[in-house]
Amino acid sequence: MKKGCKYGTHRVLEPQGVLPQAAYKIDNDMNIYSNEILIDVQSLNIDSASFTQIEEEAHGNVEKIKEKILEIVNERGKMQNPVTGSGGMLIGTVAAIGEDLKDIDLKVGDKIASLVSLSLTPLKIEEILDIKVDIDRVDVKAKAILFESGLYGKLPSDMSEALALAALDVAGAPAQTAKLVKPGDSVLILGAAGKSGMLCLYEAMKRVGPTGNVIAMVIDEAQAEHLQKWGLGHKVIISDATKPIDVLNKTLEANNGKEVDISINCVNVQNCEMSAILPVKDRGTAYFFSMATSFTKAALGAEGVGKDINMIIGNGYTKDHAEITLWELRESEALRQIFDQLYL
Amino acid sequence: MKKGCKYGTHRVLEPQGVLPQAAYKIDNDMNIYSNEILIDVQSLNIDSASFTQIEEEAHGNVEKIKEKILEIVNERGKMQNPVTGSGGMLIGTVAAIGEDLKDIDLKVGDKIASLVSLSLTPLKIEEILDIKVDIDRVDVKAKAILFESGLYGKLPSDMSEALALAALDVAGAPAQTAKLVKPGDSVLILGAAGKSGMLCLYEAMKRVGPTGNVIAMVIDEAQAEHLQKWGLGHKVIISDATKPIDVLNKTLEANNGKEVDISINCVNVQNCEMSAILPVKDRGTAYFFSMATSFTKAALGAEGVGKDINMIIGNGYTKDHAEITLWELRESEALRQIFDQLYL
Repeated sequence: MKKGCKYGTHRVLEPQGVLPQAAYKIDNDMNIYSNEILIDVQSLNIDSASFTQIEEEAHGNVEKIKEKILEIVNERGKMQNPVTGSGGMLIGTVAAIGEDLKDIDLKVGDKIASLVSLSLTPLKIEEILDIKVDIDRVDVKAKAILFESGLYGKLPSDMSEALALAALDVAGAPAQTAKLVKPGDSVLILGAAGKSGMLCLYEAMKRVGPTGNVIAMVIDEAQAEHLQKWGLGHKVIISDATKPIDVLNKTLEANNGKEVDISINCVNVQNCEMSAILPVKDRGTAYFFSMATSFTKAALGAEGVGKDINMIIGNGYTKDHAEITLWELRESEALRQIFDQLYL
Repeated sequence: MKKGCKYGTHRVLEPQGVLPQAAYKIDNDMNIYSNEILIDVQSLNIDSASFTQIEEEAHGNVEKIKEKILEIVNERGKMQNPVTGSGGMLIGTVAAIGEDLKDIDLKVGDKIASLVSLSLTPLKIEEILDIKVDIDRVDVKAKAILFESGLYGKLPSDMSEALALAALDVAGAPAQTAKLVKPGDSVLILGAAGKSGMLCLYEAMKRVGPTGNVIAMVIDEAQAEHLQKWGLGHKVIISDATKPIDVLNKTLEANNGKEVDISINCVNVQNCEMSAILPVKDRGTAYFFSMATSFTKAALGAEGVGKDINMIIGNGYTKDHAEITLWELRESEALRQIFDQLYL
């Protein structure tokens, strides 16, 4: 067995010199290198943007969707939609572990979800068994490879697969919240009623403890009532994250007239940068988890209002992110019920 | 005198509810509020993207450029190019200070540069005196207003105006470097031969002290020779910031086989995110100063390679950024000479 690059560049076919995610085509030969993991794939959870695009192109015809997916994977060696550039994740069982990875916390037969994108994962599909159009899921007979740097989460035995997957999908945000938020902090969470927002909210309340203040910003009365019923957030404010002055004023009101230590932006629409920046105190932190964030709007916007704050790009990964996030569901009956109702 | 909003929203005419930068039109009445500063403007340094667009539209005709600038300012109350959205900065003399700002470190008659964008600064032009097409500079008889949150730098008496302005233009980067870098750190600076790159390089070398290692990445041999001649950087590597694996390998080689503590990206071209991410050690920091940075490429890219690093959006402002940056020029004969040769 040869040893490959930990980031998988040994499988990049074209163009040379880039990482697997940026590559057009990667090598999906299923003989593994000594630092790779082979997976028997059970299903692909196609990224929502990608699945929608394929579905539209196929005019909703399931056979055509199958054809299109096979065509992409045969052409590129990975399930990366050429239009959207996005991938998704997979669920499967560990089939083999390269000899250089013998010491990791996985054994053959473990059921895992990949936590790196399909857009960089070598994949070979033998057969598509079924397509569940309503949940963007493709059941397959297939094999895939995880690189040494690839992330995965072991699917727990004490909760349903669907529940674990729904949470793992946004695992970066609550885990980063756990690391950022300190006892006594005041925290503003924008888009607090969404999936990542609620997980962050729960984690922030736990971390600030009895002397902190966690403010949940939501868009309407119905969301506010939900959060209050479930006991999520010390204060709930209703505002529009594209209206920074309104968000600022309501946040100050909910925080004894003071700016907050940390803001966490989980609102997945554009032009919300200033609502995460304005309410934060000097030397405080704005954490951007939303993929709709514009780098330049944040950088120039903070300068424009003279805010000396630390602005963080929400890394989808931080150490132990899967465990931290799954633990929330074990700990909180409310969160489990919410996920059961809303995301399963 | 009435008191206005510290961010200047009291002058937003349309649309309502946004900040001055996002506004289409702001009020440029030159009667100041109690927390505003009135400036007698001497010149506008139009942002390069904006000036180029206007110059092209005017086919290089100076009278037409004048007309276009007056038209924009009369229409919008600020010099914000409607095509590029960008502004620039101004130089002028303090003409009046509102009574609520009496305690700031400015007095009437002080010469200052505005360090917030013209795209949010109320401006009224009486007359355009001259246009220096080669340096995007417009000499004017005009007045402008700085809000309470507006940033400015006093122009120092011990260096030329042009030298101070060239440095203040990128003041955020070296000042952030001063705050991020600690004694003994290893630091990779991408695009180290550019204006912000060299200022960061100098500051990083000062901060790491004798036990640190500052690696300057440049694109070609000529730049490498320049930096070595000037004694900037402990090590200089030649690579292409759009080729992350090459950058990684050369960085490891220049850092005893180890990943660095901090990377600072000053390369103003696209697709350089991974070159700033890959060479950083777990729990290290990647600081993105380049405006060509893509938020999503950084966020998804770090996840894709399983890098648990802190990624920072380069805020154009941090406390005392002007003073920290001007101090570099006072301290370093080499930097002054470089700036004299390259940017004046």
